[in-house]
Formats: sequence, C-alpha cells, structure tokens
Amino acid sequence: MVKIGIIGATGYTGFELVRTLQRHREVDLAFLVSESQPGSDLADIYPHLKGYGERRLCTLLEAQDIEVDLVFSCRSHKESMAVLPLFYEKGVRIIDLSADFRMDTPAAYEAWYHVEHTAPAMLIEAVYGLPEIYRESIRGARLVGNPGCYPTGAILALLPLLEQEFIDPDSLIIDAKSGVSGAGRKPSLHTHFVEVNENVSAYNIGRAHRHTGEIEQEVSKLAGQRCVVLFTPHLLPINQGILSTVYVALKTDRSTDHLMALYHERYDAEPFVRVADRDLPQTRYVHGTNYCDVAIQRISGTSKAIVLSAIDNLGKGAAGQAVQNMNLMLGFEETEGLV
Amino acid sequence: MVKIGIIGATGYTGFELVRTLQRHREVDLAFLVSESQPGSDLADIYPHLKGYGERRLCTLLEAQDIEVDLVFSCRSHKESMAVLPLFYEKGVRIIDLSADFRMDTPAAYEAWYHVEHTAPAMLIEAVYGLPEIYRESIRGARLVGNPGCYPTGAILALLPLLEQEFIDPDSLIIDAKSGVSGAGRKPSLHTHFVEVNENVSAYNIGRAHRHTGEIEQEVSKLAGQRCVVLFTPHLLPINQGILSTVYVALKTDRSTDHLMALYHERYDAEPFVRVADRDLPQTRYVHGTNYCDVAIQRISGTSKAIVLSAIDNLGKGAAGQAVQNMNLMLGFEETEGLV
Amino acid sequence: MVKIGIIGATGYTGFELVRTLQRHREVDLAFLVSESQPGSDLADIYPHLKGYGERRLCTLLEAQDIEVDLVFSCRSHKESMAVLPLFYEKGVRIIDLSADFRMDTPAAYEAWYHVEHTAPAMLIEAVYGLPEIYRESIRGARLVGNPGCYPTGAILALLPLLEQEFIDPDSLIIDAKSGVSGAGRKPSLHTHFVEVNENVSAYNIGRAHRHTGEIEQEVSKLAGQRCVVLFTPHLLPINQGILSTVYVALKTDRSTDHLMALYHERYDAEPFVRVADRDLPQTRYVHGTNYCDVAIQRISGTSKAIVLSAIDNLGKGAAGQAVQNMNLMLGFEETEGLV
Amino acid sequence: MVKIGIIGATGYTGFELVRTLQRHREVDLAFLVSESQPGSDLADIYPHLKGYGERRLCTLLEAQDIEVDLVFSCRSHKESMAVLPLFYEKGVRIIDLSADFRMDTPAAYEAWYHVEHTAPAMLIEAVYGLPEIYRESIRGARLVGNPGCYPTGAILALLPLLEQEFIDPDSLIIDAKSGVSGAGRKPSLHTHFVEVNENVSAYNIGRAHRHTGEIEQEVSKLAGQRCVVLFTPHLLPINQGILSTVYVALKTDRSTDHLMALYHERYDAEPFVRVADRDLPQTRYVHGTNYCDVAIQRISGTSKAIVLSAIDNLGKGAAGQAVQNMNLMLGFEETEGLV
Repeated sequence: MVKIGIIGATGYTGFELVRTLQRHREVDLAFLVSESQPGSDLADIYPHLKGYGERRLCTLLEAQDIEVDLVFSCRSHKESMAVLPLFYEKGVRIIDLSADFRMDTPAAYEAWYHVEHTAPAMLIEAVYGLPEIYRESIRGARLVGNPGCYPTGAILALLPLLEQEFIDPDSLIIDAKSGVSGAGRKPSLHTHFVEVNENVSAYNIGRAHRHTGEIEQEVSKLAGQRCVVLFTPHLLPINQGILSTVYVALKTDRSTDHLMALYHERYDAEPFVRVADRDLPQTRYVHGTNYCDVAIQRISGTSKAIVLSAIDNLGKGAAGQAVQNMNLMLGFEETEGLV
Repeated sequence: MVKIGIIGATGYTGFELVRTLQRHREVDLAFLVSESQPGSDLADIYPHLKGYGERRLCTLLEAQDIEVDLVFSCRSHKESMAVLPLFYEKGVRIIDLSADFRMDTPAAYEAWYHVEHTAPAMLIEAVYGLPEIYRESIRGARLVGNPGCYPTGAILALLPLLEQEFIDPDSLIIDAKSGVSGAGRKPSLHTHFVEVNENVSAYNIGRAHRHTGEIEQEVSKLAGQRCVVLFTPHLLPINQGILSTVYVALKTDRSTDHLMALYHERYDAEPFVRVADRDLPQTRYVHGTNYCDVAIQRISGTSKAIVLSAIDNLGKGAAGQAVQNMNLMLGFEETEGLV
Repeated sequence: MVKIGIIGATGYTGFELVRTLQRHREVDLAFLVSESQPGSDLADIYPHLKGYGERRLCTLLEAQDIEVDLVFSCRSHKESMAVLPLFYEKGVRIIDLSADFRMDTPAAYEAWYHVEHTAPAMLIEAVYGLPEIYRESIRGARLVGNPGCYPTGAILALLPLLEQEFIDPDSLIIDAKSGVSGAGRKPSLHTHFVEVNENVSAYNIGRAHRHTGEIEQEVSKLAGQRCVVLFTPHLLPINQGILSTVYVALKTDRSTDHLMALYHERYDAEPFVRVADRDLPQTRYVHGTNYCDVAIQRISGTSKAIVLSAIDNLGKGAAGQAVQNMNLMLGFEETEGLV
Repeated sequence: MVKIGIIGATGYTGFELVRTLQRHREVDLAFLVSESQPGSDLADIYPHLKGYGERRLCTLLEAQDIEVDLVFSCRSHKESMAVLPLFYEKGVRIIDLSADFRMDTPAAYEAWYHVEHTAPAMLIEAVYGLPEIYRESIRGARLVGNPGCYPTGAILALLPLLEQEFIDPDSLIIDAKSGVSGAGRKPSLHTHFVEVNENVSAYNIGRAHRHTGEIEQEVSKLAGQRCVVLFTPHLLPINQGILSTVYVALKTDRSTDHLMALYHERYDAEPFVRVADRDLPQTRYVHGTNYCDVAIQRISGTSKAIVLSAIDNLGKGAAGQAVQNMNLMLGFEETEGLV
C-alpha cells in the first residue's frame, strides 16, 4: 500500500478526493491536513463519511512527521505554493489541485494571478496534469499541476481539432456553464442559495476569468501559435457539472461524420473520454464520474462546428483527474478507484 | 399621499416591501435606510428595480429629519428595538417586521430570545399584526409587531379549530417546510447553494426554534389555556414559500366536509385566506402573493385531522402582511397594493 | 373597457396572459377558450387564480358568439392558423403567440415548420410584433405575430449593432440558456423533473431549432443581407428566463464604453429594455416582468464583443410582449398592466 | 460468479440496480429485460453507462432461455406478479421491487391495491425484505418482497422504539418528504419540471397512500397489536432522497441521551443504519448510498419525541436494499457492491 497525504481536506475538492481514494485498493490515507479544524474527524464536517472509518484531521506541523509517498494539495492558490516546498524538498511527489503549478512560467502565472510566484523552480519543473496530452511526462513527474475545471472541459473539446489543424486556432469561443461547487465551500452572496436558485448568470466575461490564461496556454501549444480565446463562464443552479459549448471555424469544410470519426480516433483508447454518438453530452451523464463526454457537429449552411463537452467539475475537473494522475505517477492501473 | 419610511431596506424583506409598496397607489416612499450602503440606490443592490425610479438609501441620521406617517423596520431583532424608539417618540406609527414586538411581555421575549428587552413599554403597547385575529386593534395601533413567517402559517391553519374548541389544544404538531429566503440574505454555510440544493433537512427541532414561543403564545390565547406545540421547521431547496402540515386530535369526530365548512365560515370573508376545496395547498399557488391557502382533512380510521397551509414567507409571512397591516392602520382598502 | 378573448388559455402562456391582463385597467376578459377543459374554471387548473373572480373556460364554438375587440391565440403552431381566420374575417384584431404568423412568407414558414401554411394571405399581412423595431406598424396592425422567446432575446441583443453596422452580420453566434416553461405544459421525458434537475443540456444545435429561421429573418432585414446565425439553445433547471450570450465581430474596434453608449442611445427611450451598466444581466432580475436587460462588453485582446440579454420567456418572451403589442394596437399607455 | 437477471431494467430503479451490480464482484448480469425497448443497449437510454460494457436489452421470451440464479423485478405492481411465476416455477430465486410481494396476505394486498392478487401462494411464501428485521428469513428465502421506499425510512425510524415498547404504537405520525424519482420515469403533469420546481406539496394524505398499508403491517407486527399510522407524503424539488419526520408519544419519559443509546444499541451492528449523533440526518448525507441515517430527540416540555430518518429512495429505498437482500440470499458479504 502506498501512503498518501492530503492538504486542505475540508473543501469540496478535498472531500471528493477522500471519497475517491476510499474506493482505491492500493493506497492508505496517512494524513489529512486541515488548518481550520485540526483534531476533528472529517466525518464531523461531512457526515456522508460516517461508517467509512476514522479520518482525523491534523495540522501541517503534525503531517510533516508522517511519511508519505505522495501528497495532494487542495488548498487554494497562493496557499499551495507556500506549503508544498516542505514536501517537495523531502522528495515527496506532489499533485497540486490549485492554480499554482499549472502555468508554464512564473511570468504567465503572475500575469493572470497578479501575485508573485514564490516557488518558481518548482513551477518550471511541474507537469500539466492532463493525461490525454501529457500522460508520459506525468508518469515520471515529481510535481503535477492538476488542471482547472473549465480548462479540462475546454481543452478536451478542442484537442483533436487542434492537433489535426482542422480549425483556425485564434478567437475560439468557449461558452461554459458550471455548477456552484466549482466556486468552493466558503459562503458568499454570489453562492447564496437564494441568489443562485432559479437564475442563470455570466461572470468574469471578456477574458477576465483566470482560467482563460490556462486555456490559452494549452491551446497555443497545441496550435503552435499564440492564441487568444473568448471564454465566458456562466453560473447555473446545479451543484456539479460543466457543459462547454465551443464554437470553431473549420479550415476545410468537413461533415459531422468526418469530424466525429476524428474524435473517435483520438479518444477511443482514452479511458476517460467518451465520444457521444447518439445523445449530446449532458452533465448528468458524467455526474460523480471521471468521464469527459464530447461530441462535435458541423453547422449546416456554414463552415463552422460546435463541440460540446461535459465533465463533473469535482471529478474529471478536479479530484477524479488528480487520482488519474496519481495512478499514472505511481504505476497503478489508470482507472483504479475511478468510476 | 401618505409618507412612508423603511429601515433595513436591503434585506430580502425590505426589498419585497419596496416592490409591494410600488404597486400601492396611496403611499410615497420618503426614505429607505441602509446603514451598510447609504448613498447607493436600492437598484444597485437589486437590479430588478432598475427603471422604477430612484430609490436612494440614506442613513438613520438622515432619515430622522424626514417627516413620515409610518415607518417599517426590516432590521433584525435587537436592532429594531434599538432604533424604533426614535420614531415612536415622534408619534410616527410603526410596523416592525422583526421579532422584537411580537411577544406579549418582556419576560416572554427574554425567555425565547435570551436578551433583555430594551423597550418594554413599547412592547406592552404593541399589537400582534395578524389581521385575521386582531384586525380592530391593528386599525388603531401605534405599533404593530408583524408576525413571523412560520407562526403566520401555523396560526391560520389552527385558528378555526381553536376558536370553536374542536381540538385538544395541547401538543399540536406543526411540521413546517420553508424556502431559504426566510433565513435572510447574509451568506452562511447553512444557506450556501451547494449545501441546500438537492437536500432536505430539519433544524432547531424540539421546541428550539424561537418561533415556537410566538406560536405557543397565540395558540394559548385562542385555547384559553397554556399550550405547548411541537414545531419542526425544515429547510427546502426553494427560494420562497412555507407549507405547514399540522396534525390535530379532534375532540369530537367530524367529517372532512364538516371541517371544511368550518374553515369556509371562518375565512370566506377574509381577503387573504383561501380555503382550498379542490387541490391541497401548494406553495407555488401563493408564490408572490399575500394569500394563505388552507385545507383540512379528517384521517380515515382515526379521530385526527391534517391541516395544510401555504404562504409565501416574503408575502403573507412578511412584507405582504406588513402592507395589509399598514392598510388597516391608515384606513386604506385592506387589499390595496397587494396581490 | 375593451373586450378581449383568449384562445388556448390553459397553457403556461395563456395563464401568464390572464394574470397580466388582470392587472390591466382597460380590458375585460370576455372569453377564455379551452378545447380540452371547457366548462371548468381556469382556477381549477391554476389554483393560483382563486379569489380573483370567475374565469370560466368555453369552447371555440361558444366563443364565436361573444363579441370581442381583440383576440389572443396561445394555441400551438398549426392550430393557431386553423382557428384564427374565423376571427379575422369578423374584423377582430389578433395577436397570435404561436409561430404561425411570424415569418414573412409562406415559403419561409414552410421551410422551417415543414407544413403548408393554410392562411397565407393573413401571414403576408401580419406584422412581426417586436415593438422596438415595428412599433408604428403594430399600432395599425390587424394581425400581429408575437415573436418567439429566443428570437426576442437574440434580436434585442443585436439590434443596435446591426442598425449601426458595427458588426459583421454573418455567422453571429447566439448561445441561449432557457428555463423549462418555454417547452410548454405537456408532460414529456424531456421535461420530466428528474431529467432536467441538476443537469444542463444543449438541444437542436446546428441551426436545427425552428427559432433559427425567425432570428435569421429579422437579422437579415436589419443587416440588409441574407445572414446565417449559429443558434444553440440550452435547457436549464429553472422555470422561467432566457439568458442569451451573443458573440459578435466588430467591424471597427470600439471600446466597451463606446458600445454601451450605443445601447443607451438606442434603448433609453424604450420602456421595456434596460441597459445594464453595473451588473451583467441575469434572468432573476427580469423574472415576472416584461423587461429585457442588455449589456455589451468588448473582449480585451480581440476585436470581438459579447452581448448579454436576459428576458422572462413568459414575459417579454410571450405574454408580456403580447400585452405590450395590444396596448399599442388599442391606443393604451404602452406600459399599462405591465411590470 | 452468480448469474443475475433483471426484469424492467429501464426505469430509474432498474438503472440504479444495474449501476450497483456493476460494482459487485460476484455477479454477472445475464439478462436485462425491457419489453418497451428490446434490442437496444441500456446505455442508449442511460448514456451514463457508456464505457462500462455492453448491456443489451432483451424480451421476456428471450430471457426465459437464459439460466440465472436470481432475478430482480423492477416492473410495477400487477406486472410483477404476472411475470414472476415463470421464474419461480423454474426454481430461480426472486427479489421483487414492486409492491406485489410485500403484504402478508392476498386480502391485505387487495385492500390496499384494489386488484386481485394473481399469485397468492407466492405472496404467502414471500419474505419482507427488510434485513434489519428479517435477516435470517431473507437468507433462506426463495422470494423476497423488497420494501417500499417510504416504509423503509419509516420502519427503521420506529423499530427500536417499538421493539422495546417505549411508545404508544397507535396513531404514529409519519411526515415524509420525498424526491421525484420515487414517482418513476413515466412523464406526467405531476412530475413535470415546472410544476415541481420551486414548490412543495403534500399528496395522498389521510392514509390514502398505498405505502400506509405496508407501514401499518410492519408496525402492527412489531407492536403486537393492530396499529393505524398517519402517513403524509410530500413531494420536493429534489431527485433523490426521503426525509421522514416521525412523531411519537413516549410511554415513560426518557431523555434524548437514553433514547439515542437505545438506537445505538439496536443499530450499531447494522451495516447500513447510522445513528447520527452530531448532525441531524439530511438526505444529502445518504445520497447515492445504501445507508439509513437516524436520530431521535425528546421534545422539551412534553413526553413526546421526534425521530428523523434519511434514505436515498433509490438506494436503501429500492436498489441498494435489493442488493443487500441478494447478498444475504446468496451468501455474499452483506455489504458487497454497496456504498
């Protein structure tokens, strides 16, 4: 059994990670750090967990004395890069679910997050944890920056088209619709039930959302040129799920069948991407799973196409993908513990 | 035109009150006090209001220089009794939507709210603002304590039975299901979208909810004896509405028809209580209105009956009832401005 | 008082129309036709209406003997054009809320609805009922085709840009998110609670939705050239509301301030279009109203812009707009009865 | 590996059963019968299942040629007793999720379901599948009638109190709140999204719901006397979950601590009943699981108590409990495949 630690276990992502790792047959949870509620059991915060065994929360200080093979950080950005060097220096392998190790350079990080990166050497070494692109690098990585939820859905929607140069890679339009758990567990007026229920809203439009930088980084690398994307997040009255509706301009007109064949070719061997032939992707089909469902359709009377992708923001968009990365890093079956 | 002031205009109740008064043909909104955002327009906080005219928020200090005939307080308990004496002493008539002037005595207030009442003389003078019981007293009142949302639904469900002594008045069971706006606009984990959505929970069970005291006070007066009620509030993933399911033991067995006739007799002349003959009360039927829908049904094989009542917690449970009280106090048509 | 009839009163649109007309001070509801439930009271189907007076439903045959000045049809397409000639021939003015009188020509209708138009002369005479474009024609119209819900939101988002030729009018992208009441009251798996709740889905993508034709018709006329639009409707777990996210390519780069000024100039005199300066449009801000809220923002690093518009699909998207049209046709204050 | 068949696989219960059995390491799904869509794959109806392997639906006729050890029926009542004799006669063991084999006698069945029981000998042999009461009988049963969702929550709430004779067993009040999936997948106005969303309603009150008979049967046996229960189901805007609020009169006054100790004593060895010490049961804590969470609290100032129980109506209320029963019947670990 491999020993695992989790930092920031009490947020929605941490909780989902614990739930996912409980199904995993090869790992032991050696510590769960919570600076806000050390001493409590995680089941005191999430009564869902009662009956699955003790899950005592400890401080970071206590955690440092416990030997682990790999640590996940579910702390928010800035906080992650503050605590992870402690583990990195001890040779512990790391999967960070914050934004701190996703960008390729400190400059890019600082441009989008408006804060200095305090662990630039680690950032440069970090691998972007999207297995569908970086599987081999992830296997050997010491530090993986687990992708953001929106970027995961957007990039998987675009990947086959960009790799095959089927589309004009600039000014891609990504209209994304997300559940509320993506905003975290900290109460705010923005996530108050009465303000979200029976409502739909766009926010951080016009390349203002920080995930824009992450999407542009990966799209640009795939396209081989610097690309700008139009990314418009929307908040929906659902707990989990992101549906991304992506609009692309085809360089050469191709039929829906031709385009779907491209997606099948690219993804049929992928364990967690399903190409949806019969029904368009919907978030409920991937709820609670690590799947990304995708479909593409050419729009009649135009040379454009629409790609739809659906993920669970807590699954493939966070904890599920983190476990997929862990499986790669530790040499387990890639699907172990995942549904 | 009568001049009206509102204190605490930025909460959900204040907002609903402004919307209701906008439809009222006899009143002018002379001031809207917000200690947190003075200088703003209420439409900055509630963009719903854009296009209905300017609604500048002022401080309490500014408000004191503006002459009004009647003031509504939508501040929370403790805060209301702190500010309302200022207006009371000037002879301004008052409708308080907090709990501060609902209990009959300072002792009762202190027993349920665990805080000293700082305006006991005003409390003793205050009239409990349930028009279906206290209409005549309300007309002449200087100060009305507008009933709580849960008590409004519970008392209207029980009123005909208690008046006619049809039921054993002790150990009445009130199982109430409420929308989230009743908890106010202040963000908390308890009202975070992700925690409420796709969930149902009971809270403050076992006579722990403070509205229990208010219900027991009015039930006891109607019954002519000190009564204890079992009141169990539940939180539902809806914005507005309270459905109360009330279980009663009939002293003499009576048919559903007989019981329904009693409700019709008692309520048919009431402008805002509808006896539901065909369909059981549902919260959506009263959404956005000042109605309370009620129905009663004897349970076959027993001598018990179930009463159902539905209100909008922001309508008959708060702002709507407050305007109904204002109409009585100021001699307007009782239904003016209300739907 | 003007006498009004409604055909198809029992659907969500008919119900909303009755509720809106109840607030109208200049009209009498002379008949409500329901072929499915004649003899019932509308309050039997919608208990919300109890206490607002009798609303007996009659057959079409009975309705023909009742004199009215104007009739609304809330029947579905095909059915409307089957029954409306009866009234048209008697000189009754008509507002049809179905799709039957929205297209400019029978050919266009047949291309999108795949059925022969059985009242082509009426269709050619009909005025498209979007007051912001056709106000003067509506005033004098005998027959108004009330716009579809999606087209209303989309066209109002684009109108200032198209009129001023600020944008490339071809391949406009309209990503629309709608509540479920737009799908009507007839039960289907598609609208079953369990299938819609905690889910988001796209449907009829790729110019397959019939509202595409209506949007293209109006956009083409405004642009002075035949335009194709990419229209992608999504179904959300809310009852009412449409948020349209519209992506446009600016011919000349202009600042957000410049673009917002254009919207203010175009819409500030419009009684039911609000330009949202502070907060982006959200559906809850227009819930239950006849407002359309709009905002535009240039996207940094590109020459594109995003327009957001929000309407209530039962308000400005159906019954509200129908009453606005009626007010124009009958010479009433344009805002009468509307909120 | 044991061979399993499912009849009626395309409803919500059938789907949940397939998902649960996919996690089970000891069984093979030998057939899935769907009379409505034979020939399809279950993943065509539930795209959630894509990627988990082929699940072809067959007819009942085809299924009869396939040897299985145990068959589940998810058909509705009347249909189950029509098809199950075919399997029963071949010696196949049976778990029926309909109401057809839950009542103790044909007369009781006919009294509550108003239809003649067509397999009375099977009914008499059937074991009521609540493991917490009938574990030993279930192990050896040929035919198990899997309990209804409401009865499961209600009986588990009451079991310790009735066994220890702590309460007056007559006129127990069960106020239950349920998600919509309990009503099945067939579209109806009652389950149309717009009618359920932002609403709460009671239905079949006054001992009219057929689950009343099942609850009374089990309560009466536990109490050793014929009992009448007041059972009031409510429909909530959630997909899954039942919260039961149960009101009981204690024969002898006892403290909450004493009562909780009773529940711990009775349930701590039960694998799927959790006694909630810290937080009251909420449906989200058991969502997607086979758990029943319970808590009891004495009400101050009275000799009454409130019991709360929460289950997932598709889990412990249907498919989860069915698999728990299967595990008992086939000698597997009782928790195998269940979460």
